[in-house]
Amino acid sequence: MFSVTVRDHMMIAHSFRGEVFGPAQQLHGATFVVDATFRRESLDADNIVIDIGRAAEQLHAVLADLNYRNLDDEPAFSGTNTTTEALAQVVADRLAARVLAGDLGETALGLAGIAVTLGESHVAWASYERPL
Amino acid sequence: MFSVTVRDHMMIAHSFRGEVFGPAQQLHGATFVVDATFRRESLDADNIVIDIGRAAEQLHAVLADLNYRNLDDEPAFSGTNTTTEALAQVVADRLAARVLAGDLGETALGLAGIAVTLGESHVAWASYERPL
Amino acid sequence: MFSVTVRDHMMIAHSFRGEVFGPAQQLHGATFVVDATFRRESLDADNIVIDIGRAAEQLHAVLADLNYRNLDDEPAFSGTNTTTEALAQVVADRLAARVLAGDLGETALGLAGIAVTLGESHVAWASYERPL
Amino acid sequence: MFSVTVRDHMMIAHSFRGEVFGPAQQLHGATFVVDATFRRESLDADNIVIDIGRAAEQLHAVLADLNYRNLDDEPAFSGTNTTTEALAQVVADRLAARVLAGDLGETALGLAGIAVTLGESHVAWASYERPL
Amino acid sequence: MFSVTVRDHMMIAHSFRGEVFGPAQQLHGATFVVDATFRRESLDADNIVIDIGRAAEQLHAVLADLNYRNLDDEPAFSGTNTTTEALAQVVADRLAARVLAGDLGETALGLAGIAVTLGESHVAWASYERPL
Amino acid sequence: MFSVTVRDHMMIAHSFRGEVFGPAQQLHGATFVVDATFRRESLDADNIVIDIGRAAEQLHAVLADLNYRNLDDEPAFSGTNTTTEALAQVVADRLAARVLAGDLGETALGLAGIAVTLGESHVAWASYERPL
Repeated sequence: MFSVTVRDHMMIAHSFRGEVFGPAQQLHGATFVVDATFRRESLDADNIVIDIGRAAEQLHAVLADLNYRNLDDEPAFSGTNTTTEALAQVVADRLAARVLAGDLGETALGLAGIAVTLGESHVAWASYERPL
Repeated sequence: MFSVTVRDHMMIAHSFRGEVFGPAQQLHGATFVVDATFRRESLDADNIVIDIGRAAEQLHAVLADLNYRNLDDEPAFSGTNTTTEALAQVVADRLAARVLAGDLGETALGLAGIAVTLGESHVAWASYERPL
Repeated sequence: MFSVTVRDHMMIAHSFRGEVFGPAQQLHGATFVVDATFRRESLDADNIVIDIGRAAEQLHAVLADLNYRNLDDEPAFSGTNTTTEALAQVVADRLAARVLAGDLGETALGLAGIAVTLGESHVAWASYERPL
Repeated sequence: MFSVTVRDHMMIAHSFRGEVFGPAQQLHGATFVVDATFRRESLDADNIVIDIGRAAEQLHAVLADLNYRNLDDEPAFSGTNTTTEALAQVVADRLAARVLAGDLGETALGLAGIAVTLGESHVAWASYERPL
Repeated sequence: MFSVTVRDHMMIAHSFRGEVFGPAQQLHGATFVVDATFRRESLDADNIVIDIGRAAEQLHAVLADLNYRNLDDEPAFSGTNTTTEALAQVVADRLAARVLAGDLGETALGLAGIAVTLGESHVAWASYERPL
Repeated sequence: MFSVTVRDHMMIAHSFRGEVFGPAQQLHGATFVVDATFRRESLDADNIVIDIGRAAEQLHAVLADLNYRNLDDEPAFSGTNTTTEALAQVVADRLAARVLAGDLGETALGLAGIAVTLGESHVAWASYERPL
């Protein structure tokens, strides 16, 4: 199995509902360093998993829809906690939709799966992985 | 599959028995940077894998029983080599026992597995993963 | 010259005023990974720059007053942009006040200076350094 | 499942053929930070996955055959693109051959698999994993 | 003293002349992770050292003139060794020229100095710093 | 001003005397990731600060005299606390002696200073810098 990973980041505000979150129930924020991994059983004719430049562009585009926002105000997240693990799924699913729409090129249609890790600090991170 | 990882560290002394270890047969020591990963198929009602604060507390408690010790003097490790890979299992198993005892909350009972990585330097690390 | 550095972090929301900030004029947030460095010409009788445990505690206390907050609502920052570089100064000055108040112990009174670096992402950080 | 990882690096020149590569079709170069992971179901009698010193030596030997080269001139890569993902496979397969030849010791014959990650920058890396 | 740092990278081929370089006399390559630091005595009216977005753009522009090249073919470096430390000076001097030309905005004219670090691997890096 | 830095590590056991050290008064250990920085006003005829290969070799030799030891048993440290900051000075002074003895080559005699940083974990490190 092969994989290629590209890294980018986003800076958002949000708050959580639920006693388990303690002081994080207040409006605060986070930088998420985002690693998007694309998996594939074998390489294509160019000897690549995916066009790394295009992967970086598409990840950047997905994050641009979240970056510099207060996620509490985003209709897409109404009534949900935008935890690190939940946002990892959001980014992975949006990337998957772009892959399936052909935005990452024809080669990307042969991908086996996507994994996304969001680092919220030097001591905590969360991941979500899914097939394609 | 989702996962959440928290990082902490411990600083211990130990020595190894066996020619394969060369100079590490002498009493020496290590800082282990410890990453504990908790895996789960789906998120709970709060949209989390696990309460990250509680996970960090429990990891810290597990490491506190090892930290600032000479592991050669610990009865739990009598007659065994406390290699990086072996200690990764010790930390994972002790965390698993705490999960099963309810120390990480009811949500944690839904975890699928635990993985622990111990970084012994910038050029070497070891991991152990197990189901729950 | 000797120095000792301890690392911690905080997660805050804020917004900026001024066209130069572009989309960061919207309410967003950041994780700041904070490195506090304590400088000293020579070591004390215990062969240390500062008690590292106490330094970590005091840094944590300084960050606790900012962590999980929307800095736009903090009276201390009214009318100012809480940029990464400005917050580096805030943290350094508050640490310096604690040093001078004796909160880091008598040894700390011999410190020559403090430097604070706030990492806002994997590709950008800012620092402020001052004498003591 | 246990694993042990060792890190080393190599510095090479190369160019790519194919429009997808854009400016990387020109002769350029890369530092690859190489992480080689050795997987094993259970520990051996010494409580190790593999002799970490020997693993580091063998990885260094594999990289020495590529380091400080222009890969465009290497017969082994004639007519192929030496992408990060393709080189990850080259390193993994060469390590696997050394394991099977006994170069990593008898214990290494019990390994379950090898994974190799090549970091090409702080924002991009690629991996290949295979059974043994 | 305040500073702001932005990180980017470039991937180049080159070779060195001189016995001291050993195997690096052959054509090889490197990824340089480039940190550009801008220093300033006090903050401007917006509470910044420099517009961080503009700093990142200008660093990217400077690196674009070197990226994906064989430096042995660049007239600017004819007859010189493009060592990590020498390239750190090249990047710093080109950034300084852009600052003085007003490309980083009027605020940047108040900068005290620039430092550039080029990381060539996880175990080696070089820096050059200069006043402005 | 130019600088070149090389990284290596050592793994030692030790204990501290003095109440300020709390549980670190017990025999424990540490991995120190060691960064040795060599400073120089201008580059030599080869366009380097120092031969980086030789610098790495000499740092490795200095660390070899400490690595895999219980520092409490080393006569050189009798009656002293081998704190991170104190060991940074030991490494810097031993490197300086080697520079002055010509072990890093003639070029190294033109060095302006040396700085050594010892990382004891992902959240704490200490440095010592001195002229040459």
